[in-house]
Amino acid sequence: MSLSASALLAADEAISGNIGTVAYGIATLGPGIGVGIIFGLGVQAIARQPEAEQVAFRYMLIGFAVVEALALIGFVVPFVFT
Amino acid sequence: MSLSASALLAADEAISGNIGTVAYGIATLGPGIGVGIIFGLGVQAIARQPEAEQVAFRYMLIGFAVVEALALIGFVVPFVFT
Amino acid sequence: MSLSASALLAADEAISGNIGTVAYGIATLGPGIGVGIIFGLGVQAIARQPEAEQVAFRYMLIGFAVVEALALIGFVVPFVFT
Amino acid sequence: MSLSASALLAADEAISGNIGTVAYGIATLGPGIGVGIIFGLGVQAIARQPEAEQVAFRYMLIGFAVVEALALIGFVVPFVFT
Amino acid sequence: MSLSASALLAADEAISGNIGTVAYGIATLGPGIGVGIIFGLGVQAIARQPEAEQVAFRYMLIGFAVVEALALIGFVVPFVFT
Repeated sequence: MSLSASALLAADEAISGNIGTVAYGIATLGPGIGVGIIFGLGVQAIARQPEAEQVAFRYMLIGFAVVEALALIGFVVPFVFT
Repeated sequence: MSLSASALLAADEAISGNIGTVAYGIATLGPGIGVGIIFGLGVQAIARQPEAEQVAFRYMLIGFAVVEALALIGFVVPFVFT
Repeated sequence: MSLSASALLAADEAISGNIGTVAYGIATLGPGIGVGIIFGLGVQAIARQPEAEQVAFRYMLIGFAVVEALALIGFVVPFVFT
Repeated sequence: MSLSASALLAADEAISGNIGTVAYGIATLGPGIGVGIIFGLGVQAIARQPEAEQVAFRYMLIGFAVVEALALIGFVVPFVFT
Repeated sequence: MSLSASALLAADEAISGNIGTVAYGIATLGPGIGVGIIFGLGVQAIARQPEAEQVAFRYMLIGFAVVEALALIGFVVPFVFT
């Protein structure tokens, strides 16, 4: 068996795939918790003061947008660092 | 000693196993904490307002179902990405 | 220098040890936090209602037992998956 | 195919990049949560006692400075440990 | 190019350093959060009951000592497992 064939055989049974998929997985970790905190505490705020529903929902959406963007950037990052 | 035999010997004393098992382990991390938060805060809500037990339990089950699914999907994911 | 000798030399200065030790370390992460939450909130419950000390301690022990077991299973798992 | 060419070919399809980038990513994990806790609880403190806004903001900035520094040091650390 | 020279060249551009440094970094993760919880909740306890400052500080120091020890043991552990 030549060295090249041995290396290819080893690659067949090794870990394969692009590390960019792991990057997106990690990029969702913080935003996932963050959006959960925003809407969880937002629901509690609205339940405590129902008349503030419009205001609370507006700020929840602002926070959601800037946090969600961090995870979505993780989707395009593997295309940048090829 | 030939190169192929040396590579096999190294594989015997190296880390072995499928990375899919690690994937399922990681996939249970968030859902495990999430279901714990749902039922922990749910128990507190029921203890504070016992008459809302039926309603609280229904929403706890809805949240539990969608969160638990994330971990169970981690069980079938290694079959998809072989 | 032959290839086998070169590989052994590299192994001497590489990362060594059993991945099972890392497995136990990770297995203590969740239970360590979990038991801390149980006894921390348990102490707060007893301090708020001292007459419920017996009841609270019984439930703290039940929760402690099922959580601690997860970490202790991590101690025997490397013997199973050799 | 010679051995050197095979190794270069393997490097082309392997994980590349400097581990210092991962170091900075990890270095932002704790400070990111920490600064979030400082300003999140700070906003709650100011909303509860609006007359303490100046004092609260001063302590928020002190905490922010010492926490943010930890992450910024993670930016220069890869230059130190080359 | 001989095989040995190729391996040395690869080592020059690979990840280098002792895994013990990563071990200490991980060992500070839990104690860092733990001491933060102790002193953070301790400050809140003292602010709520200023006459309990001496007692609270004593228990904060006890907790700090046993938690900080975990991280400092991570400093000597790489000398044990060489």
